[in-house]
Amino acid sequence: MFAQRAPEAVTPEDVAAAAGVSRPLVYRYFPGGKQQLYEAAVRSSADQLERCFTEPQEGPPTERLRRVLGRYLAFVDEHAAGFSALLRGGGVCETSRTTAIVDEVRRAAAEQILLHLGAERPGPRLRMLVRTWIAAVESASLTWLDEEKLPDAGELRDWLVDHLVVLLVTTAARDGETAAAAAALAAQEARDGPLATLARRLAPLVESAASG
Amino acid sequence: MFAQRAPEAVTPEDVAAAAGVSRPLVYRYFPGGKQQLYEAAVRSSADQLERCFTEPQEGPPTERLRRVLGRYLAFVDEHAAGFSALLRGGGVCETSRTTAIVDEVRRAAAEQILLHLGAERPGPRLRMLVRTWIAAVESASLTWLDEEKLPDAGELRDWLVDHLVVLLVTTAARDGETAAAAAALAAQEARDGPLATLARRLAPLVESAASG
Repeated sequence: MFAQRAPEAVTPEDVAAAAGVSRPLVYRYFPGGKQQLYEAAVRSSADQLERCFTEPQEGPPTERLRRVLGRYLAFVDEHAAGFSALLRGGGVCETSRTTAIVDEVRRAAAEQILLHLGAERPGPRLRMLVRTWIAAVESASLTWLDEEKLPDAGELRDWLVDHLVVLLVTTAARDGETAAAAAALAAQEARDGPLATLARRLAPLVESAASG
Repeated sequence: MFAQRAPEAVTPEDVAAAAGVSRPLVYRYFPGGKQQLYEAAVRSSADQLERCFTEPQEGPPTERLRRVLGRYLAFVDEHAAGFSALLRGGGVCETSRTTAIVDEVRRAAAEQILLHLGAERPGPRLRMLVRTWIAAVESASLTWLDEEKLPDAGELRDWLVDHLVVLLVTTAARDGETAAAAAALAAQEARDGPLATLARRLAPLVESAASG
């Protein structure tokens, strides 16, 4: 219920009715009422999202990222109203506890990316790259929900993959650590995979810009 | 005062002392007390930021963006504590009014970018690109403040310029409107400007990825 409506629009009575139990029973398990129900829902969603982020370190890295983002966008799609309300903040149900859970999910996402990048102790540029891209993904997800889910989830997913790739490449041009991580990932890509496709699309643009 | 401390740490008494006036005088002009003082400070900062975003539509577009980002990062630097508190949200002083002001600043930033892109009625992909990059800039600014302002403001500024450029190029590969806007901007770039420098840095990476 908290996935499909703003938290303000859910009452313990609604939860009781949906569960087919009495209102007192809901309050017996959730004596904090609506606020406690909401926090439990946020906790459960955070666990679900963190499971989405886990992906074996096998195969082309862009394919791993596509799978993670596919699961993540399916989650966003299914939890649209709750996802927007939680991330936009400012609602009466948001507390330091719900904010802390959101930050925990962001940290979990960053850890997974750094794991695949092989960067156990990332420097400031690589840390900034990862955090910035995660913020970009969040913002793009909110915009996507605002824009009636246009472009479609598959295109958005591939755009977000390309976004991380170009950000890695741009940062690699300035930072040795990022360059080494990007090179190690590129070596695991398929010849005709998303990296090669992106590179072929960019090649003429880069060439014309480089020659001025 | 609200720039250099979290809003929780500023009292009307502090404001009175700093202004060299009596506490009752502060309350005569700000009968809403601390909350009203805070909202006035946020309003004034928003006006200042929106002025930062304005830049004549002349000269190489990446140079225009560098100037805007230079002014923006100077603002972030000078308003570090207040900027973090406001954008992280969740503080007791944040209200629907302060959130609305932050959203207004984001919209003003997006409008300026779309103006320079020559896109009066942007489609969903270009709108998403602009909103996503603005969120990335915000997040990078917060990370920068967390990371003791490393890398330095000049490098961060140039990285953010490159970020928008590569995002435009990536999106242009999928979207005709973005491609036309990016081409019009590229035509105004200097032969040895940031676009050409970025392209020369990326060329070998793109070439090796394209050939698989």
